[in-house]
Amino acid sequence: MKNNLIIVPIIFCLYFQSVLGQETKITEDFKPSSVNQPEKKFPQVNSQGRVRASIAAPNANKVQLDLGGVKYDLVKDANGVWTGDSNPQDEGFHYYQLNIDGASVPDPGTLYFYGAGRLGSGIEIPAKDQEFFSLKNVPHGLVSENIYFSKLTNSFRRCFIYTPPGYNENIKTRYPVLYLQHGSFEDETGWASQGKANLILDNLIAAKQANPMIMVMDNGYAYKPQNSQQDKKEKMLSVFEEVLITEVISMIDAKFRTISNRENRAIAGLSMGANQTMRIMMNHLDTFSQYGGFSGTSNYPNTDAIDVSTFLDGKYKDGNALNKKIKLFWLGLGTKEPVPFPKSVGAFRAMLDQQKIKYVYYQSPETAHEWLTWRRCLYQFASKLFR
Amino acid sequence: MKNNLIIVPIIFCLYFQSVLGQETKITEDFKPSSVNQPEKKFPQVNSQGRVRASIAAPNANKVQLDLGGVKYDLVKDANGVWTGDSNPQDEGFHYYQLNIDGASVPDPGTLYFYGAGRLGSGIEIPAKDQEFFSLKNVPHGLVSENIYFSKLTNSFRRCFIYTPPGYNENIKTRYPVLYLQHGSFEDETGWASQGKANLILDNLIAAKQANPMIMVMDNGYAYKPQNSQQDKKEKMLSVFEEVLITEVISMIDAKFRTISNRENRAIAGLSMGANQTMRIMMNHLDTFSQYGGFSGTSNYPNTDAIDVSTFLDGKYKDGNALNKKIKLFWLGLGTKEPVPFPKSVGAFRAMLDQQKIKYVYYQSPETAHEWLTWRRCLYQFASKLFR
Repeated sequence: MKNNLIIVPIIFCLYFQSVLGQETKITEDFKPSSVNQPEKKFPQVNSQGRVRASIAAPNANKVQLDLGGVKYDLVKDANGVWTGDSNPQDEGFHYYQLNIDGASVPDPGTLYFYGAGRLGSGIEIPAKDQEFFSLKNVPHGLVSENIYFSKLTNSFRRCFIYTPPGYNENIKTRYPVLYLQHGSFEDETGWASQGKANLILDNLIAAKQANPMIMVMDNGYAYKPQNSQQDKKEKMLSVFEEVLITEVISMIDAKFRTISNRENRAIAGLSMGANQTMRIMMNHLDTFSQYGGFSGTSNYPNTDAIDVSTFLDGKYKDGNALNKKIKLFWLGLGTKEPVPFPKSVGAFRAMLDQQKIKYVYYQSPETAHEWLTWRRCLYQFASKLFR
Repeated sequence: MKNNLIIVPIIFCLYFQSVLGQETKITEDFKPSSVNQPEKKFPQVNSQGRVRASIAAPNANKVQLDLGGVKYDLVKDANGVWTGDSNPQDEGFHYYQLNIDGASVPDPGTLYFYGAGRLGSGIEIPAKDQEFFSLKNVPHGLVSENIYFSKLTNSFRRCFIYTPPGYNENIKTRYPVLYLQHGSFEDETGWASQGKANLILDNLIAAKQANPMIMVMDNGYAYKPQNSQQDKKEKMLSVFEEVLITEVISMIDAKFRTISNRENRAIAGLSMGANQTMRIMMNHLDTFSQYGGFSGTSNYPNTDAIDVSTFLDGKYKDGNALNKKIKLFWLGLGTKEPVPFPKSVGAFRAMLDQQKIKYVYYQSPETAHEWLTWRRCLYQFASKLFR
């Protein structure tokens, strides 16, 4: 007993010192982030995954780095330059901003990415597995901006189309198509920018780990025009499903050398996009044969056990029929995803298990509801598509 | 005399009131700028061409709108929102930024454009002739991002390629190519973003005022790798001409359905790009047959009379031979361009006149060294190309 009285506090102190040490000791090996603008030295990232932000604001009262839900105070030097570090961040891509005397602004050092409903700064914490989405000296596909007028929304819309290496040279070859959707408060630029979808496919195709395919990345926000005052009082009605099914697919099939049948058409999305695309696929099993849901399912945000008789109008009732119809049913989730994703996706998987519906389930190690999860999901999913 | 003593002050007062009135009376018909991010209400522009900026910065000491070389103080309201107006601006596109307590940052309301060596805010003052670059319900070409590895620079580079409407459908048609370059401190994104080159061509082609063509927009900054310490002491050596001639053109001819001969290959650029592309064309008259110089010539910044025996190694000495070789020599300049552009381009034109070299000269009304000049130049130039 006497010994314990001494040993316990010592162990506690050692533990505490170790934890605190980890928290406060900063490794001075910071390098400019890979998604900085050309020649910009800040922000930087060190081997602990800390972000160092720096900005000249000689007359400011307070400058903060606003990252991952935490606002870190920066410190001003004699030249009026404010600098400071974040805690270690998860590997991968994170949105962030600076706060200067209460004004939330993009960091002038970074490229800008559409997320959180705005173009803002991004930071890339090097990932141990970053080879799969790195820019390498392999043949590269094209990412093409395609503007179109949608009658359903009465507006101009835009999608980006990835055509694989060789598409322009092999003018007789036709390709399968993956329709790939972004998450909430993101847009059609996300997958080929912070998502690195084109580089992931370039690398997979070069390594012969994926079949060459076309990817179409559209904007998941599409609303019926609100013409009357009555319309404007009502909630905006999403017509994304109709836009995709009746306008986009026919446009893509006319403009690109697709193999235009369900066997060669897949649909996938992340978060909100996973939810949307699952509904779209279940409503159009004659159009799509393969599905990928990254960090999302159509029961979101519900975590209760799913009643197959009512869920999505009973579309999962006949597991046998679905197994015959759906060539690939693929789900992915990060191991650090927040509430309600683990339980919501868990409830969905329980329903699939109960219905004996075959699916692939992938877990992205040590990532949350962020882009490294979705890059890995695409990498895993695309290697199984159109096989 | 007595009358004059009364009348002169009255006239002076009326004049002064009129000038001051113009300066200070603000028309309250501000609307969000057309290059704002979706749903963003600020910045706004009124019918006088004034820009109204607004940002929440509750704890700031001073917030300024930094536009066209002038810093306008914004005024804080009770909610901590700073708002203020600029003087009337020229029609067209202008780069700008906000300044918050000495920090120069992008305005969180706008899309971002690469200019002045950074991604920053832009504002669009509606132009009376904006129809020619507006997004209309006509067939649209694609703008494709093409990543390539350059052996000459030992780095990954990128160009954007505009393919005209019908390119993907008419798979047997081959097209002429315009190589189109940006200005200093800009990059390969400029022409299809703030330049609206794709929309200008879409509209021209729809109106049958231009032949369908491919446009290639590369980055004019390209340097030999600096391997040794000696290299690093020396000035960086531009190899853009070599990259374009030996790497880009062959890549484009292999990847796209071009008509690969000098008659169907043109080169043009703005400002620094005009200077660069003129040198490239004169060095490679067997590669290009048509040239456009927008707000720039290769004698820049010199305004002296040109000595044809030494200028560009005497390449303009034989005017007769050049008239036979060059199908279109096109120059454009804004009427409000600053020193030294009018005199520098003027000295160049005087040389062309002296050598009896045929050329087209276009003046963009009421625009300076900015993008509305260059959009108009492209519009005029493209309508005369490949005829």
